[in-house]
Amino acid sequence: MEAIPYYSLGSAVVALLLAGYYYTSVKKADPGNERMVYLMNEIQSGAKAFLKQEYTWVTGFVVVLAVLIGAFIDPYASVSYVVGAALSALAGYVGMMVATMANARTTQAAKEGPGKALPIAFRGGAVMGFSVAGLALGGLMAVYVVFVYLLEVDDAFEVVTAFGLGASSIALFSRVGGGIFTKAADVGADLVGKVEAGIPEDDPRNPATIADNVGDNVGDVAGMGADLFESYAGSIIAPVALTAFSLSLVAPNAQDIGYVSLLVFPMAVAFVGMLSSIVGSFFVRGGDSTDSKKLSRALHMGTNVAMALTVAATVAVAYWLFEDVDLFDNPIGLAISVIGGLLVGWALGKTAEIYTSDHFGPVKSIAKETETGPATTILKGISVGMVSVAASVALLLIGIAVAYWGGQYAINEEAFATLSGLDAAGLETFGGIYGIAVAAIGLLATTGVVVSVDAYGPIADNAGGIAEMAELDPEVREVTDALDSLGNTTAAVAKGFAVGSAALTALALFKSFEFAVLKASDGETALSLDVGQVEVFIGLFLGAALPFLFASLTIDAVGRAASKMIVEVRRQFAEIPGLREGKEGVKPDSARCVAISTAASLKEMVIPGGIAVVVPLVIGFISIDALGGFLAGALVSGFALAIFMANSGGAWDNAKKYIETGHHGGKGSDQHKAAVVGDTVGDPFKDTSGPAMNILIKVMTIVSLVFASAFVSGPF
Amino acid sequence: MEAIPYYSLGSAVVALLLAGYYYTSVKKADPGNERMVYLMNEIQSGAKAFLKQEYTWVTGFVVVLAVLIGAFIDPYASVSYVVGAALSALAGYVGMMVATMANARTTQAAKEGPGKALPIAFRGGAVMGFSVAGLALGGLMAVYVVFVYLLEVDDAFEVVTAFGLGASSIALFSRVGGGIFTKAADVGADLVGKVEAGIPEDDPRNPATIADNVGDNVGDVAGMGADLFESYAGSIIAPVALTAFSLSLVAPNAQDIGYVSLLVFPMAVAFVGMLSSIVGSFFVRGGDSTDSKKLSRALHMGTNVAMALTVAATVAVAYWLFEDVDLFDNPIGLAISVIGGLLVGWALGKTAEIYTSDHFGPVKSIAKETETGPATTILKGISVGMVSVAASVALLLIGIAVAYWGGQYAINEEAFATLSGLDAAGLETFGGIYGIAVAAIGLLATTGVVVSVDAYGPIADNAGGIAEMAELDPEVREVTDALDSLGNTTAAVAKGFAVGSAALTALALFKSFEFAVLKASDGETALSLDVGQVEVFIGLFLGAALPFLFASLTIDAVGRAASKMIVEVRRQFAEIPGLREGKEGVKPDSARCVAISTAASLKEMVIPGGIAVVVPLVIGFISIDALGGFLAGALVSGFALAIFMANSGGAWDNAKKYIETGHHGGKGSDQHKAAVVGDTVGDPFKDTSGPAMNILIKVMTIVSLVFASAFVSGPF
Repeated sequence: MEAIPYYSLGSAVVALLLAGYYYTSVKKADPGNERMVYLMNEIQSGAKAFLKQEYTWVTGFVVVLAVLIGAFIDPYASVSYVVGAALSALAGYVGMMVATMANARTTQAAKEGPGKALPIAFRGGAVMGFSVAGLALGGLMAVYVVFVYLLEVDDAFEVVTAFGLGASSIALFSRVGGGIFTKAADVGADLVGKVEAGIPEDDPRNPATIADNVGDNVGDVAGMGADLFESYAGSIIAPVALTAFSLSLVAPNAQDIGYVSLLVFPMAVAFVGMLSSIVGSFFVRGGDSTDSKKLSRALHMGTNVAMALTVAATVAVAYWLFEDVDLFDNPIGLAISVIGGLLVGWALGKTAEIYTSDHFGPVKSIAKETETGPATTILKGISVGMVSVAASVALLLIGIAVAYWGGQYAINEEAFATLSGLDAAGLETFGGIYGIAVAAIGLLATTGVVVSVDAYGPIADNAGGIAEMAELDPEVREVTDALDSLGNTTAAVAKGFAVGSAALTALALFKSFEFAVLKASDGETALSLDVGQVEVFIGLFLGAALPFLFASLTIDAVGRAASKMIVEVRRQFAEIPGLREGKEGVKPDSARCVAISTAASLKEMVIPGGIAVVVPLVIGFISIDALGGFLAGALVSGFALAIFMANSGGAWDNAKKYIETGHHGGKGSDQHKAAVVGDTVGDPFKDTSGPAMNILIKVMTIVSLVFASAFVSGPF
Repeated sequence: MEAIPYYSLGSAVVALLLAGYYYTSVKKADPGNERMVYLMNEIQSGAKAFLKQEYTWVTGFVVVLAVLIGAFIDPYASVSYVVGAALSALAGYVGMMVATMANARTTQAAKEGPGKALPIAFRGGAVMGFSVAGLALGGLMAVYVVFVYLLEVDDAFEVVTAFGLGASSIALFSRVGGGIFTKAADVGADLVGKVEAGIPEDDPRNPATIADNVGDNVGDVAGMGADLFESYAGSIIAPVALTAFSLSLVAPNAQDIGYVSLLVFPMAVAFVGMLSSIVGSFFVRGGDSTDSKKLSRALHMGTNVAMALTVAATVAVAYWLFEDVDLFDNPIGLAISVIGGLLVGWALGKTAEIYTSDHFGPVKSIAKETETGPATTILKGISVGMVSVAASVALLLIGIAVAYWGGQYAINEEAFATLSGLDAAGLETFGGIYGIAVAAIGLLATTGVVVSVDAYGPIADNAGGIAEMAELDPEVREVTDALDSLGNTTAAVAKGFAVGSAALTALALFKSFEFAVLKASDGETALSLDVGQVEVFIGLFLGAALPFLFASLTIDAVGRAASKMIVEVRRQFAEIPGLREGKEGVKPDSARCVAISTAASLKEMVIPGGIAVVVPLVIGFISIDALGGFLAGALVSGFALAIFMANSGGAWDNAKKYIETGHHGGKGSDQHKAAVVGDTVGDPFKDTSGPAMNILIKVMTIVSLVFASAFVSGPF
């Protein structure tokens, strides 16, 4: 049983080998003609330049926090923190490099039809997927093995938790910085190019087109990868930390009550999930049809196979680990928690799809409101996003209740409480909370294949952009469009997983924080989370307000960065003779646009990113009770805002696309103009503020967890 | 000391006499020519028809809830509930009748300059102000005297609390129904009249113009009046209920620990506040200048005098009531709590002004964003509203901390705890919580004069409308415009008071709910508000999501009601020959527009209003702990959304007005069009969803408080 971390580590290595194999297979594909290679290189070097500068900034931040952790907490924790950050950054870099290599190759393959192109795009995404999953699980397991098994350091679990904080730091900055970049470039390209100069999207004359394509890679590939890296690592850390911090309070009996089984169960699920993902990835094959249903089935076959295998294996694992522990009356309960989490993630993704896909009522109702202009379009979109919050929260709470029930059902709570003597510390519901904690791993066990499919989206999108810019045959563009349109629904699934796991993980980390405080004070300081107490209430209120501030800052950041882009694009059109007319040999200065967007977005990233780390630290050193309230407030309000912004934004986007397919007057009509207003408002909602909100919640919780002992003992 | 409720009752009677005096003085003013009288009557009969139908609907609701209260709680409580509802409805009706009488008279007086017109508009508002304050305080005190002193019924304080629920019920439906009506009419009038038919605002040819003016009265007068009625009553009930429910647990010692002083202190503050308001109202006199600063000074003199007097008298009252109670070491502490509340209200109003007035940066920044179109205008407005949430929450929390500290400073907590034996029940911080409870009364003690000034706004607005529709001399319109422009800043002050008091009152009621549960179970069931517990957490999450649902429902309601208006206005322009051209003798069918808007808004009011009452009841009967979490979640998230929506909406409105004064291209430019989009999006934000949110929070808390004993004993 103790060997499970080694198994997981092994499976991570296999995943990395698979990533290497896919890398080779993508690399040997034909990248197309000279023009295509040129474009691919432009995009790649832009993305590289961005990441390089982003990592330079973030390194400064990581160093500061590493020093703080070393000083206040533990030097080993500092090491673990840096490893988590470095591996996350590496995963983002690798994924982005391959994605920007796979785009032109997908375009080239599209000349031979979707049957050739789909596997290339998927394999490009799979390099990302399995790098993220392999590095996250491998890194975490390595840290675990080294500090828990080999060095047996004191506070080994604080050290393991710090790995998660490292991953969160990178994720936060990648999401915020990448999100600002991609939207600034997008808005700049659209506003001057499409609206003012009247040239089509992805036109090579537009100086911001390359930046726009770079944005897809740094936002949707590197940002999303770092996000899932931290979600995945976090979902394993949460139940481990919960178990360690709570049961370490009763160390003498720990063995009897199934301590080790509880610790390794999430790792075992991750292990079977990884193997299932690897198997699943081989099921993705392209057909010869551009029919969207068939393509979709081909693409999703991998995920479906992986999930089915994971579910079956989880049941087996639960019985294997817990059957011999007397206190676990019904091991199946824990499997139910895990599967419950998986279903919630699926349901949240489905809800997101219902509210944001043009096959359903909400998007159609927005499209209809375009008839009365942009104002009613905006109002309807806001209303759709807000009502989706209620639906999503209801689903999430059902999931929480099921996971809680599963955990309680699995453990004989009464015997557990008696044996552990934990009743006094409010631990009588340990099983339920553990159930919630492992529910998140259910969602993320198949990260490898989920991210593969998700990273497929921007590759297909870029492939279309290259087809357009390289002025290829319209038939090629048709194939890439068909591939691209799949990307939207696949993104909804990944979003559901990200947001569902964020709430579950944050909740579990929040409980771990409670126990960490108790443990750090040797059982003397029990965190008061009674919202009837004034400190807790003040914390709750502050916590609920912070996501609003964060949203405001990130929206403004996009606005400022975009206006710098607009000025630059206008300048190039005005100052470069022959550019607008498309004169032979006249090229825009794309690199300058990339550089401007990079500088602007990185500058804008600092304040919102910094707030997420600094505010909980400040509150925690003033009052731990207030910090508890703060985290709870931020979790509920941040989740609501995240859903609202993501779904409003997605709904506007698809309402516009729906109109572009010929409804309500079609492209160029006043209705279309109104829809474009909605889409533009939705851009920072869905691609900057919304996704960053999920990470915000977790970063604040995990930074509190890592610093819990320092809060208890005071800063000096 | 026991006589204080009688004093307060007496002061309420004086306030009602003053309202009668102002009524007579408005009535005898000249209403102007035949056309003006006709318009006035049209508006008045429209508003009457709306209120009549609204009250019919609401009566059904009140009857149902009265029966439930009678069955589950207490027949006396049912009586008190009905009295609260009836008086609130009466105050709304009286205020609306006078406002619709004062409008034409203000227009007529404006012919002789602002010196004549301002006092008439103010006195019209003052009838409302003192009716609201007199009926609220008088009714509440009468209920108190009858049930506590004369009948000495069991559970007398539950009975008193039910008065507040009655007031809340009317307030909720008035705000929601009136808010939907006013915006549906406004959007209908603007969209077809200004945009499609190209005729100016308030043009008599527009069939929706009368409805638009009716909307100002039912929304801004009757709705706002009911809102302040319930806020005022609630702010007195909260500390009374808190004291009664908590200290009744220790009845034997209650007298020694200053029970009666604590009960009557809020009433005493209300008493001195009422007298101060009456005195203050005589300080409002008109000058002869249309200079906005001078006018503003004249109008606000009354409020300033009233507040200064109230502050001084509160200090005296605190010493008088608490000096002889040994446990109160520092009576000044309670005065500090009250004054702290007053300052927070003022600061919140000021914050609202900074974020929504065109004299400051935020509105100017929105105006600037109109240069790049409607999308950036919307984004900037959302960002401004969201950042104002953070600022307002920070201020509110400072106020809460000051009020808490004041209460603790006043009471010798240690001696209090020893004597009352309340330590175990978590009452060691009673003083602080009591301080928060009385802070709200600080904000609302001067309700009489504050509402007078606030109701002045729509009267001046209507006066301008009548000047336009009656085609009077442009000079008259200039005077009414000058008077009207004051309305915007005065509204900001009242909004700050409403939102600040809502948060403070809700917090105090929330604490009272805790004690009510404890009391109803004879000390056996202590409400768990530990957000670490799964029921509480689930409640918290649901509570945070509900305001989003409520916002979505109310936004959609406005949209649907507005589109019915649009259809009707278009129909009239198409079918009534000569209407658009303004042919002599051709009149639009204004009454039909009023009827349509009435029917639509009342239908739309039912679901959001019903949710506010039904959801807490359902949750409460399932799990009281979950209800506690739910109320906390709804409070923090609802407050944030209320501020966001009110300030975003106000900022867009004033950004549009700022452009209309000639900035960024002025009226008719593309920038102006973008600003109009922002304004239209902001309309339901600031006039429907935002203001209703404050009441939502309180209704849910007070319904829980009234039904606490039923939750404890179960429904059957």
